[in-house]
Amino acid sequence: MEKILQHIDAHLDDSLERLFALLRIPSISAQPAHAADCRRAAEWARAALTEMGFEARLSETAGLPGVIATHHAAGPEAPHVLFYGHYDVQPADPLELWDSDPFAPQLVEGPRGRRIVARGAVDDKGQVISFFEACRAHLAVTGTLPVRLTILLEGEEECGSPSLTELLTNERAALQADFVLVADTNMWNFETPAITTALRGLAGVEVTIKAANRDLHSGLFGGIALNPINALTRILGDLQDDQGGIRIPGFYDGVAPVSEEMKASWAGLGFDAEAFLGEVGLATPAGEHGQSPLAQLWARPTADINGIYGGYQGAGSKTVIPAEATAKLTFRLVPGQDPAKILANFERFVNERLRPDATAEFKHFGAAPGFAVSPDAPFMRAAQAAMAAEFGKPAALIGCGASIPVVEAFKSQLGLDTLLAGFGLEDDRIHSPNEKFELACFHRGMRTHARLLAAFAQAG
Amino acid sequence: MEKILQHIDAHLDDSLERLFALLRIPSISAQPAHAADCRRAAEWARAALTEMGFEARLSETAGLPGVIATHHAAGPEAPHVLFYGHYDVQPADPLELWDSDPFAPQLVEGPRGRRIVARGAVDDKGQVISFFEACRAHLAVTGTLPVRLTILLEGEEECGSPSLTELLTNERAALQADFVLVADTNMWNFETPAITTALRGLAGVEVTIKAANRDLHSGLFGGIALNPINALTRILGDLQDDQGGIRIPGFYDGVAPVSEEMKASWAGLGFDAEAFLGEVGLATPAGEHGQSPLAQLWARPTADINGIYGGYQGAGSKTVIPAEATAKLTFRLVPGQDPAKILANFERFVNERLRPDATAEFKHFGAAPGFAVSPDAPFMRAAQAAMAAEFGKPAALIGCGASIPVVEAFKSQLGLDTLLAGFGLEDDRIHSPNEKFELACFHRGMRTHARLLAAFAQAG
Repeated sequence: MEKILQHIDAHLDDSLERLFALLRIPSISAQPAHAADCRRAAEWARAALTEMGFEARLSETAGLPGVIATHHAAGPEAPHVLFYGHYDVQPADPLELWDSDPFAPQLVEGPRGRRIVARGAVDDKGQVISFFEACRAHLAVTGTLPVRLTILLEGEEECGSPSLTELLTNERAALQADFVLVADTNMWNFETPAITTALRGLAGVEVTIKAANRDLHSGLFGGIALNPINALTRILGDLQDDQGGIRIPGFYDGVAPVSEEMKASWAGLGFDAEAFLGEVGLATPAGEHGQSPLAQLWARPTADINGIYGGYQGAGSKTVIPAEATAKLTFRLVPGQDPAKILANFERFVNERLRPDATAEFKHFGAAPGFAVSPDAPFMRAAQAAMAAEFGKPAALIGCGASIPVVEAFKSQLGLDTLLAGFGLEDDRIHSPNEKFELACFHRGMRTHARLLAAFAQAG
Repeated sequence: MEKILQHIDAHLDDSLERLFALLRIPSISAQPAHAADCRRAAEWARAALTEMGFEARLSETAGLPGVIATHHAAGPEAPHVLFYGHYDVQPADPLELWDSDPFAPQLVEGPRGRRIVARGAVDDKGQVISFFEACRAHLAVTGTLPVRLTILLEGEEECGSPSLTELLTNERAALQADFVLVADTNMWNFETPAITTALRGLAGVEVTIKAANRDLHSGLFGGIALNPINALTRILGDLQDDQGGIRIPGFYDGVAPVSEEMKASWAGLGFDAEAFLGEVGLATPAGEHGQSPLAQLWARPTADINGIYGGYQGAGSKTVIPAEATAKLTFRLVPGQDPAKILANFERFVNERLRPDATAEFKHFGAAPGFAVSPDAPFMRAAQAAMAAEFGKPAALIGCGASIPVVEAFKSQLGLDTLLAGFGLEDDRIHSPNEKFELACFHRGMRTHARLLAAFAQAG
């Protein structure tokens, strides 16, 4: 292992040069004008992987191609890892806020040493190349890889992954593996690596309450005619109890309490809820009483009204009783909750509260369950050991309140769990001007990925 | 009296001719292109009143002029009546839906005999001329009027009365009287005259709940961050109790129960709540339990949310926790309720329910108290007697759930109560194409106004 790490240290400049070559390609998937650039980035990756000894090819879709590469020399007994990353980047606008050309990567001195500045520096080209270079070091020193490895690069992650389902369906056989390694997340802080062990799922619904067959004058009908805005607020006002719990029947069915191990791990993170909320002008955790701020964010489900509208919305006042009113809600879900059941129970919750003359119509907007992977899974234990060895301290086991669609897709389409381990930092300005990746993070990312590959082989 | 009524009957065609002359003037106050027509209508009225023996003049305002005319020959001991009407009309659009030119009045055969069809036929030119013609008959037969009479015609009633306050302020001295007679309302039905004894007032408020200093991602902040839409619905959902009562503290302070006399009068009206609601697709009176449908419409206050908005309102779903959410409410008020106190108590109601991190901002939109006049007032008893004599049955004493701003203005600016007695019908299509006034209603309106003038003199 030491030789592999020394090889990485000794060839840092070469690694950077390869990363810069990829960063120079403006592979903006959201902009059709850059479709050829996107394909150029895919070709670049295919060529790089081929040169390293992979069997690599493009996998065409209705949109931009994926890149699929395999290196299975470790043999059928070795663990099989599927690595996922994406070669596309966000648009660079507004250009005038960049200090340098977003597609002319620079090394810039910063408070933590030099940093790589470019669109895609960390999201996700820097993370992808740190993994590629770890493989390269293994191959250079040992002539092979310690695990069977399949690499999947997507080209549309930054524009909503419209072809991901097609890609996973087409490549179902090629993508069989023991688990997925996704390198598109952050460390806990500059000193502490992190593994994301939980993501919340999502279920969306729109509810429209209808009453009269037309808008009514609130003087001539007020009092006797059901007002659908009043009715809607009356129903939705009942969503939360006084302790911040959600009152939809069965909402918490299957939701496990936060484990003592997770509580202990989170307690060690030193999360400053006051600072987190203060940043956006808030002060008080608003979720369930008795749940820690991190539990409210990572481990407890929510019912947020994302939009509401009905009646008059212009300046001043209008004496109208509208014919209908609408609200859009999303539920953030945790493992154990069945999205379909949550949506059905929400409909029941609304229908049970309908007053005479009110009707409710519903639209659903996708549904994905929550995701969690046990820290006890062999690949998770291996990852924790590898990270502790590199950083001299254990990885933070963290959650994320949002969904990562690709993780949900791997689970639902391929049945695979995901190890989320990345080397970005909160302040890397992904999707913003002057996106950067600390050189130290890139370097440690390569070293950690090299250790991870070895650790997986032993865990297998 | 009989001679006066005979004079009216004998000169119906002349009366119609004068009404048609006024109807031919397109005095649309909302359209600047018709400003000269409006002034022409005012001049027409001034000339007609002068010719009848009134002292008549225009009263200029920043907008269209009022017409003021006095006939005080009855002497200082006689009751002093202030008559109010308006010479302007609604726009005639959409013109293609009219069966004839809106400003070329026609007599058209209908199910109740001939009807006058034109813009302004009933609202309000037909009603104004029916009063003028009653005066003309008195003057023709007796050489004088039985009461002191001041006439005020407004020219901007159909565009929100922007100059009414100025007009009443300028003419305060000229408009002193014992009470106001407003001829701009309906009969109960074709056989039954009506006096409107109660109008609801109005207080409007907009409330904005703010939380974070920017829109938040509902995955990254959901659960820990207060959602202002959830907060707003939670507060407004508490507005009504399970019996349909309003829970704002002190909301019913000063509200008198419906009197037994009114209950009896309303019971006799044969109001069909099912038909009334069925017309707009509803079936169930939605107001306070234990209050009759008419009480819910005419005598009980309301809290209607007229508009609500916040967050995402487009197609599909967006996982946002917005920074703020807004609702617009109006309260319909009844006598005894103080609009300022209602608005202050609503603010307290909201503020008491604010969760940590939420703030509330309020805007007020005007406030007018409810109006009621006792059926025992001398001019009211006189009016009831006169109507009963003309129709052979007592007038319906009815309410109106909406405000009539001019009635509020007479009360607050001049301290005058108002007798609301008019001869329109529910199906007269005011403000719509093919506006009409039944010839029988015009005729009976003239006869009733003649009787009213005499009855007021005796009641004085």
